[in-house]
Amino acid sequence: MRQPSSKRNTIAEIAAKAGVSIPTVSRVLNNRPDVAPGTRKRVEQVIEECGFTRNRATPSSRKESSGIVDMRVTDLANMYSVEIIRGVEEALERTELRLALSVTRSSSQLEQRWLNKVLNGTTDGAILVLARGQSQDLDTLRQHKIPFVVVDHRGELGPDVPSVGATNWLGGRMATEHLLSLGHRRIAVIRGHADLRCSRDRVAGYRAALEDAGIPVEPELVRRGEFSQQTGYEQTCALLDLPNPPTAIVAGCDIQVVGVYGALRERGLSVPNDMSVIGFDDVPIASIVTPALTTIRQPLVEMGRVATTMLLRLIAEEPLDSMRVELTTTLVERDSCAPFCPLNAKG
Amino acid sequence: MRQPSSKRNTIAEIAAKAGVSIPTVSRVLNNRPDVAPGTRKRVEQVIEECGFTRNRATPSSRKESSGIVDMRVTDLANMYSVEIIRGVEEALERTELRLALSVTRSSSQLEQRWLNKVLNGTTDGAILVLARGQSQDLDTLRQHKIPFVVVDHRGELGPDVPSVGATNWLGGRMATEHLLSLGHRRIAVIRGHADLRCSRDRVAGYRAALEDAGIPVEPELVRRGEFSQQTGYEQTCALLDLPNPPTAIVAGCDIQVVGVYGALRERGLSVPNDMSVIGFDDVPIASIVTPALTTIRQPLVEMGRVATTMLLRLIAEEPLDSMRVELTTTLVERDSCAPFCPLNAKG
Repeated sequence: MRQPSSKRNTIAEIAAKAGVSIPTVSRVLNNRPDVAPGTRKRVEQVIEECGFTRNRATPSSRKESSGIVDMRVTDLANMYSVEIIRGVEEALERTELRLALSVTRSSSQLEQRWLNKVLNGTTDGAILVLARGQSQDLDTLRQHKIPFVVVDHRGELGPDVPSVGATNWLGGRMATEHLLSLGHRRIAVIRGHADLRCSRDRVAGYRAALEDAGIPVEPELVRRGEFSQQTGYEQTCALLDLPNPPTAIVAGCDIQVVGVYGALRERGLSVPNDMSVIGFDDVPIASIVTPALTTIRQPLVEMGRVATTMLLRLIAEEPLDSMRVELTTTLVERDSCAPFCPLNAKG
Repeated sequence: MRQPSSKRNTIAEIAAKAGVSIPTVSRVLNNRPDVAPGTRKRVEQVIEECGFTRNRATPSSRKESSGIVDMRVTDLANMYSVEIIRGVEEALERTELRLALSVTRSSSQLEQRWLNKVLNGTTDGAILVLARGQSQDLDTLRQHKIPFVVVDHRGELGPDVPSVGATNWLGGRMATEHLLSLGHRRIAVIRGHADLRCSRDRVAGYRAALEDAGIPVEPELVRRGEFSQQTGYEQTCALLDLPNPPTAIVAGCDIQVVGVYGALRERGLSVPNDMSVIGFDDVPIASIVTPALTTIRQPLVEMGRVATTMLLRLIAEEPLDSMRVELTTTLVERDSCAPFCPLNAKG
């Protein structure tokens, strides 16, 4: 593979061969969205044909690139993190940067170890999934001038923290409104961990939808827990044991639904005839469970991509258009919700 | 965090504090299995308490460590690769090494790009999942003296290629014997891609079990395809269209089963009453599908761990006990297989 003698020459050569301007080549190299698809394709073809090696993300970088972007996720046991990783990896694919991945299982000891590895090694920047908003980790990264972006934070974020999320409030509201439109009135919601902002926002959306419909929020229908199958199971059992159980459940995430379905099956109840269920995330299991799950899609792969694009700009010391980006959630209708049928409701 | 002044002193200090020998500390640091659990715990506690930073994997390394192990997987869309990544990440957790992850989607262009990134950057070693056995990539890594381990190869491996796999032949045989023991005689098998050694070995195990039972292998019951949901669906439809369909299916992997189940549901057939189905892998979806899947478990997390342990030894220029390690597959019984019932069999 030919190594270009100097970066400026290379970009100029690519621009000439592709018949575009130098800034356009630069935008393609930095994975910026503001390039027409046809133009991007032509530039990428030239890059490919000439066997150019892309230079690292940061033409104007203050120091030499390490070639590494560090990413920290809490676990790989469900597909939530994996989808975000897919987006990050895809966005880095056409750069020379490699993705260094760590899993911390929400353990502060492992989080500390990750920080030590990053600080003892070299890194161009970091992407932290579900990091605590007000945390020493973020302060430490800032002190070491390591650019970072947070995806789906815990707790509160300061205004100076670059972050990516989804419109969780709107998603929670949409899920609840969908069930209301089917005639349901006793609608339960299952939360994730209380310090997860995304979970709290979803529940706030649920409350807003009920309030708009003039339906009081009943505390017994708002269930606490974690984003886990176990929580889905336990809270569904608790809901079914109420004197007046709900006719529909808004799950905190798709993984919880596996437990929700299990609890309903154990009691001989069918989805959606006896209970409507709606999930959140639209990870692959949503179409694998039976019946296939109606859910609120959050664009996890795209969140990973956008976080990476933001990080590449921070690394290149370019300004961000916005410190906080929220991508849209959408309703994906499958087979787990049915109109409310008074015959099936107890009490 | 205190940085030890010299590696030998550090290990000696840890040994003294933990009351063990220096070689024992070294074994713990290198994630070697030959340490008693209590001893390992004590040594790790001392390491933790003193805030020692572990030195990189390679006390005797010929060159300075880069702090990076590179891993290449074909995709993240199913849990097969993710489970292996989990094992690698866990094994690296207590070293100072970071895991650089790349996804190549079996594209030779992306594989080439990965190789360029690894060669242009720095790496201590590489783990390649589903790499071609006879390939330029492996030759190039060898030429650059980059240690590597292959997990589940394609094609054939030379005797000099360190690799980890599972006992796929035995697994295919066990799956088929389980169905035979339930009285099934017309048993179909769905393959993965023909150049995947693991898939070919599973089908060979299927043939061996049938032959031992004196049952001829019928070519129409051996179906070709990929390790995908789509293949599961298509091949099950084809099997059901046979004049004399099977009463049981050995799927090539758990992902295929999602398609197998879908095709059966479409025809109004129930699992296991109308058709017994057995999977391969035991990824999380095996217990999420309905009915829960009886499957052959391959220890994917452990395969990742073992590959990492082997790689750390290669990095440290220690000899391997064996170039090829195969971990045991086991039968996990759930609800998708039932005794053969002559009333249900057509023809």
